[in-house]
Parts: sequence; structure tokens; C-alpha cells
Amino acid sequence: MTLTHLNQKGEASMVDVTDKDITDRSARAQSAVAMSADAFAQLQAGNNKKGDVLATARIAGIQAAKKTADLIPLCHPLALTKVQVDFELDEANRTVNISSFCRLAGRTGVEMEALTAASVAALTIYDMCKAVDPAMVIGPTKLQEKIGGKRGHWTPENTETDT
Amino acid sequence: MTLTHLNQKGEASMVDVTDKDITDRSARAQSAVAMSADAFAQLQAGNNKKGDVLATARIAGIQAAKKTADLIPLCHPLALTKVQVDFELDEANRTVNISSFCRLAGRTGVEMEALTAASVAALTIYDMCKAVDPAMVIGPTKLQEKIGGKRGHWTPENTETDT
Amino acid sequence: MTLTHLNQKGEASMVDVTDKDITDRSARAQSAVAMSADAFAQLQAGNNKKGDVLATARIAGIQAAKKTADLIPLCHPLALTKVQVDFELDEANRTVNISSFCRLAGRTGVEMEALTAASVAALTIYDMCKAVDPAMVIGPTKLQEKIGGKRGHWTPENTETDT
Amino acid sequence: MTLTHLNQKGEASMVDVTDKDITDRSARAQSAVAMSADAFAQLQAGNNKKGDVLATARIAGIQAAKKTADLIPLCHPLALTKVQVDFELDEANRTVNISSFCRLAGRTGVEMEALTAASVAALTIYDMCKAVDPAMVIGPTKLQEKIGGKRGHWTPENTETDT
Amino acid sequence: MTLTHLNQKGEASMVDVTDKDITDRSARAQSAVAMSADAFAQLQAGNNKKGDVLATARIAGIQAAKKTADLIPLCHPLALTKVQVDFELDEANRTVNISSFCRLAGRTGVEMEALTAASVAALTIYDMCKAVDPAMVIGPTKLQEKIGGKRGHWTPENTETDT
Amino acid sequence: MTLTHLNQKGEASMVDVTDKDITDRSARAQSAVAMSADAFAQLQAGNNKKGDVLATARIAGIQAAKKTADLIPLCHPLALTKVQVDFELDEANRTVNISSFCRLAGRTGVEMEALTAASVAALTIYDMCKAVDPAMVIGPTKLQEKIGGKRGHWTPENTETDT
Repeated sequence: MTLTHLNQKGEASMVDVTDKDITDRSARAQSAVAMSADAFAQLQAGNNKKGDVLATARIAGIQAAKKTADLIPLCHPLALTKVQVDFELDEANRTVNISSFCRLAGRTGVEMEALTAASVAALTIYDMCKAVDPAMVIGPTKLQEKIGGKRGHWTPENTETDT
Repeated sequence: MTLTHLNQKGEASMVDVTDKDITDRSARAQSAVAMSADAFAQLQAGNNKKGDVLATARIAGIQAAKKTADLIPLCHPLALTKVQVDFELDEANRTVNISSFCRLAGRTGVEMEALTAASVAALTIYDMCKAVDPAMVIGPTKLQEKIGGKRGHWTPENTETDT
Repeated sequence: MTLTHLNQKGEASMVDVTDKDITDRSARAQSAVAMSADAFAQLQAGNNKKGDVLATARIAGIQAAKKTADLIPLCHPLALTKVQVDFELDEANRTVNISSFCRLAGRTGVEMEALTAASVAALTIYDMCKAVDPAMVIGPTKLQEKIGGKRGHWTPENTETDT
Repeated sequence: MTLTHLNQKGEASMVDVTDKDITDRSARAQSAVAMSADAFAQLQAGNNKKGDVLATARIAGIQAAKKTADLIPLCHPLALTKVQVDFELDEANRTVNISSFCRLAGRTGVEMEALTAASVAALTIYDMCKAVDPAMVIGPTKLQEKIGGKRGHWTPENTETDT
Repeated sequence: MTLTHLNQKGEASMVDVTDKDITDRSARAQSAVAMSADAFAQLQAGNNKKGDVLATARIAGIQAAKKTADLIPLCHPLALTKVQVDFELDEANRTVNISSFCRLAGRTGVEMEALTAASVAALTIYDMCKAVDPAMVIGPTKLQEKIGGKRGHWTPENTETDT
Repeated sequence: MTLTHLNQKGEASMVDVTDKDITDRSARAQSAVAMSADAFAQLQAGNNKKGDVLATARIAGIQAAKKTADLIPLCHPLALTKVQVDFELDEANRTVNISSFCRLAGRTGVEMEALTAASVAALTIYDMCKAVDPAMVIGPTKLQEKIGGKRGHWTPENTETDT
């Protein structure tokens, strides 16, 4: 494999997907925000009531998935048919785990959309909790699963790409 | 400290900064993309010639800093006066280290802008190298330094917030 | 019927329309701006000449229809194939009546696009006339007709939803 | 008063505010969404738990205030220092009342930002409840109060503009 | 002079304007669209009535000026205080002449905003007339005048930059 | 032919393309930036090393193609499947020649996308070199070729439209 987003002269180039089939494609990505005990306690308390931290981060992630082609220069504009962002509070590690899911009937994969949704949801949690703890750490952010397209069903465990 | 982005009912609220002074504020953030030996070698080869991977990621990061208020729901729109994105190739760890810097004469800090720039630069590197290695890992993404505003000079080491 | 934009936990969720058929869908919406005699007279005088109030509001409404998925968090991005915004001056009531029409061959309806076009056209009329009358009233804004999708041909009179 | 957004030839023109003073300006606007008993009951039930309808509409309204200059052609881009969106459930009238507040230290008023926030919050409530009741009615949308600038303190009752 | 938008390594860099004074800055730019006799006659006929070609192009140009920092990667976001777009029909040359004007009290010049306004107004005229004449030619697009900042009053005739 | 973007009353109108076939469509456009000897020499020197002027302009052009429907009021939103921007340094004329190419399987042509990409790439070159030469001239910007749709294969030489 080579870097498909560069032409033979090394210049940035949007891949031509005009002739690819329209198929069902989906992707899952994950990110996380690790924080101090104090920040985690406040976020958790809010979530048990009606506190809007995770509701806001969920909306931010969904909106960001729709902006992917505007953020990532060589991404194709895609008419996403499903975006979902979920959170899980890991108390032992004072961490919010984020998972995102995007789906499309289209000509190219939606992994960048899923990664962008997870990343912006994480940034939003950071923004809303930073008054309590500016030292929060975001990541690891990575692809969990990709279905559709020439790789078929990809997961980090099920790949022959990385040698 | 409490979560300043929620009101007393737990609802999302943009902080009122109207009465804060206009002062010189800046922030540095970092992120990273760890990849396979094959992907790293191709990125490195491209960078030695004229390959546009890092040039594209740099532009994406700078543009994203300017979109922060559009991405992060409770961020104030800011007229950034400086955005910079730098890369360092860490061959031993097959990792691209990303650092971002934002500056502003304004009423509120620019740490979200710096974190957004670093995050989107990382996503762009992922996008441009994913054909070779979809299992790349982004992060840790975190704030390195913040100058100006009520905390003065903040670094992860120089903070009394996290207990 | 239930609120389709919430999952079982009450969390915001973009409906998955991947498996819906691509069909011809359209929607009409209306809004209105009621104003003082003075403001209405000036708007009317301008319209008889070449005054750009309604031309500007028409463009703003058309552009807004294209931004619907960016404005309304759970709307799907849609490749609209037709947007139209029309105005009627109701002299007796010193009111500008606005009607909008959107059309699409797609997997989901375009009523939000039509409502957004009408709303933003109304806001633009308000903006351009507010120096004369800041007390103008916008609305009622509502859906007039929807064709395509599982409800078939919907009008406010022809519905069994509202009990 | 005349229509300030048209020049002498009747052409659209952005008012020149370069020489106006930077002062503290704020505005409040209102809108409303009236719906069927069924839709109102579901929205109310969700709000008592953790249902995200109003949280989503609040975020949409705040984000829309920041997009005002992109939506309304002759609005100046403004660095808003505060945006707030509140809801009140009026059970007797099966109506969600929306109020918005925007503030700025700047050269021009923020009434369009407040009106845009209220309008887009209303459209978002419509979107999230339309599966239950597509016949909901949005409005009246209007300015409630404006402070700062040449009119001083304006309210609908305290105006000599409308003759 | 050197290329200020590259650092010493030749990498793209947004100039740091934090420490520059806030002064009154303005710029004028021009563009033009030359077309066939048929297209020009139709545009002219429309303009004499109420045809919206030039009204639409004017709005597009004004809106584009506000989007400059989103379009041109190293431009700073600016809170423009005035944007104006004017047209002149040159019958002898079957050409629409476009002139734009932008103004700002700020830390950096507005020539890119004026050039962007003129360019997008030209593209909009092309779009609206292309059914009649796809061979229209846009340009020359250039800066006419710039006031404020370190060059003082710049015009193409009054410059010592170009050697 | 008549101006298809105006209705019979002369009002702006987005053409209804719902019933047009989805076919393979592409377009090529060109623009150019002529500059002083000094500016051209610096740009050329940078290009031989790793200077990011053309890399930045390329990204700006690609991103702008994706924003066309947001910039040009009556353009339909399109899911472009390919965008390419190329540069050629014409030393004799101290000019950067720009060519752009867009492709789509869709219901309407992509000439506006190609023209927008070329225009914004030109504006970006202007921005990055203006410190050395503010008197640069952009243009001529024009369509070079269009394939697909009712005109079939159009080039400036192969047209019967312009009489």
C-alpha cells in the first residue's frame, strides 16, 4: 500500500471515488478523557441529575461528524445516514470513554467521520470540565471497526495491513 | 472550583466574559499520531521530498483553530491573532508529535483553540496515512501551557487544581 | 408515535435512514412578519422600485435551507435539488407572508429545510426593517404540506397524528 | 427613520459601524412552540427524566447565535461574550416558551443574535417532536428588550418608533 | 521584503498580529465578468426591471467577505465593520465591472476580504448567466486601494514594492 | 437560452434538478496570478525547497470546491467525488497558472465548483505573496472544459451558445 492521498509528485490529492459502488458502510471509533477525581466526581454528579455535560458533548460530536469534509482537507463530502455518540463513565480510572458510530450508503468509508465525532466530543468534555481540571488527557483516539468497502470487515485485530 | 459551563440547574451555559479585561493570552497544546513502521517510513520519505502530508495537516490544524467556536458549543467566538502548528518526527517511536500554539488579545483563554488545532492536525495525518495503516493511534492530546487570565502561567507541573 | 430523536435512555440520536428508499420528497412551509404601518410602507415602496429587502431575504432563505443540517443537530445532511422562497405583501394586515418549498430525491423528508428557509427569510426581513420598527412580530411559522415518505401526502388538515 | 440596510439606490448595504463606540449591549428575544397534547406530554416526561430534547435545543440555539452573521446577509460578525437560552413549559397551552439572551461589548446591537438563537431553538424542538405532531406552530418570535446603543433601553412598551 | 506567511523552514505560518495597533483600515478591490452580447443583453434587461442577478451577486459578495478567514488558510478572523459591493454595466465591452470595499478597526488589513468579495460576486454572476454563455471570462481581479497599516495609503500607482 | 436562475418575475430561483438523471459529470477551470519579478522569484525558490505556498493554495482550492454551495447562492449542494488543483510556473510571464478539475456522479454540472477552486487557490497565492507585491493580478478565470449533462462535451471552442 502507498499513501493514496498524495499523487506521484507528492502533492495532496482527493482520491477519485466516482466509479466506486454505492454500498453500506459503517465505522466505529473511540476516544476517552481522563481527569482528576474532583472533575470526575462533578461530572458524575451532574449526569445523575440533569447536568448537560454529556448531552452537550453528544450533540457536538454528532455535529462534528457532519463537518468532517470541512475539517479534513481531502475528505469527500458525504450524506451520512446515521451518527451516534455514546459515553461510559469508568469510575476506577476517572475516565469518560467515548464511542462513536457512523453509517452511510455511499462510495467511500466513514472512518474519518467516526474519528472526528469522537475527537470533538472529547474536546467538548474537556471544555466543560477544564475550570476544575485543565490537566485532563484526551485519547487514545482510534478506529475500532470498519464495515464495507474493499477491506470488508476491519478491526484492529483483524488486519494484515500493519507489518 | 465547579463546572463553570453549567448553571445552577445543571443546564449548559456560555460563561459571560463581557466584563473581563482584554489581555494577552496564549496556549500551547500537543497531540501525537503513532503508526506502523511502513506508514512512518512513507510519511518520512514524503517529508524529505515535497510530500504534502504535514503541509496539509498544518493547514487543517490552523483552519480548525479558527472554527473552534463552531465545533465546541460553549466556546466564545474569538479573533485569534496567531495560530501555529508544528510537527516532529520521532523515529524511535514511529510517532508524529504535534504541537500547536494560539494567541489572542482578548477576554478569554485560547486553550480550546490550541487543543482543537492539534486534534484536527492529528486527524488529518490519520486520514492521509490510513490506506497504509488504519490502526494508527491518536493521542495523548493535552494542554502544555497557558499564559494570561486568572490562572497566570499554567503548566501541567505548575498547578494546584488537580488534587 | 414516540419521539424518534431520543433513544430508550432519552439521549439525542440521529435516526438511521440508511435502509430507507430514495424517493421524491417535498415540503412547503410558511412564516410571516407583521410590522408597523411605517415599516410596511417603506418596504412596499422599495419593492415597487428595486429595493433589495425581499431579494436579500429570498437569498438568505435559500442559503439557510442548505445549512439546515448545520443548524438543527439531528438533521441529516441532504443534497437538496430545489429550494424556492416566495413573498406576498398583505397590505390589510401590514404583513409579509413567506412561503418556502424544498424538494429532494432522498431517504428522508425536507420539512426542516422548508421551515428553516422560511424562518431565516423572516429574520432577514426583520433585520432589514428593524431600524424603522423593532417591534415586528415573526410567525406563525408552520408546515403547510409534505409529500413523500411514510405519511404520504400530509397537510395540517389531512392528519391523524394530532389527537 | 428609514431602512438603513438599503443605500439611496435601494441596494442592500451593510451599515458602516467602524466609528461607533464599543459599549455594553444586550438583547432578549422570545419564541414558542405550541404542540398537541400527546407531543407535549412526551416532551414533558422526557424533561423530567434525562431526555435530551431541551438540552439539544439549547445547544442549537447557542450555536445559532454564533452563526448569525453567516445566516443574515447584512449582519456584522460579532464576538459574542454571552449567549443563554431558556425554556419554560406552559402546560395549560401545551407550549414551550423560549427566551434567549445575548451580550457583547461591541459597536452594534445583538438583537439579531437573540432572535436567531430563539428561532433555531424553536426549529430544533419542532424537529425532535415532529414524529408525534407535524402540525406544531412556531411563534410569535419577537424582541423583548434591548439595552445599549442609540435607543438606550428599548422594550416593546417603551418605544416611540412604531407610529 | 520576504514572504511573511512562511517561517524560516518554508512552512505555512499565520503572522502574529497580537502586538499591532488597532487602527482604521480599509481596502478596495475590483473584478469583472466579460460575456457574450446575448448574455449581457439579458442581464441588462433584468437589471432594468427587477431581475435579481446583481442583487444576488451583491449578497454573495458581502457574505463571502465575512467568510474570508474560512476560505484563505492564513487569514486572521476579522470583525468587519463595513462591506460594500457595487456593479457597473459597461455596455461597450459587454462587461460587468465589480468593485468592493471593506473596512475594519483592527490589527490587520482587509485587502483579502475585499478581493474575496469581488471574486465571489463575479462567480455568482457567472453562475446566473452561464446557461446563456458558459464562455464568460472573470478578471482581472486586483487590489485598487488600501488605507491603514504600515504601508499607509497604497494604490497600484503609489507603491515602491514592485521593483 | 434564457437566464435559468431567474423565474418569470425576475426573482432568484434555484433550478429544480430533481428529475434529472444521475450521470458522470466533470469540469476543468483555470485561473492565474501574475506578479512582480521579486515575488515570482521568491515563490519559485520556495517551491524548489519545501515552501508551502502552492501546497497551501492547493488545499485552499480543494476545500473551496466543497464550499461552493455555501458561497454561490443558487448552487445545489453536491457530493463531489474528486477535486484536483494543479499549478504551473510560467517564468517568462512571472505567472502561476492554476488549473482545477472536479468530478461527480450527480444531477447537475460541477463547473461552479471548478471555477471556485481555481479562484480561491488564486486568492490564497495572492495572500501569501502580497507582502512582496500587493499589485498582483488574478485572472483570467474561465471554464476550460465540461463533460456530461445536456451540452455533452463543452469547450470554449466547441460551443454554439455564444452568438
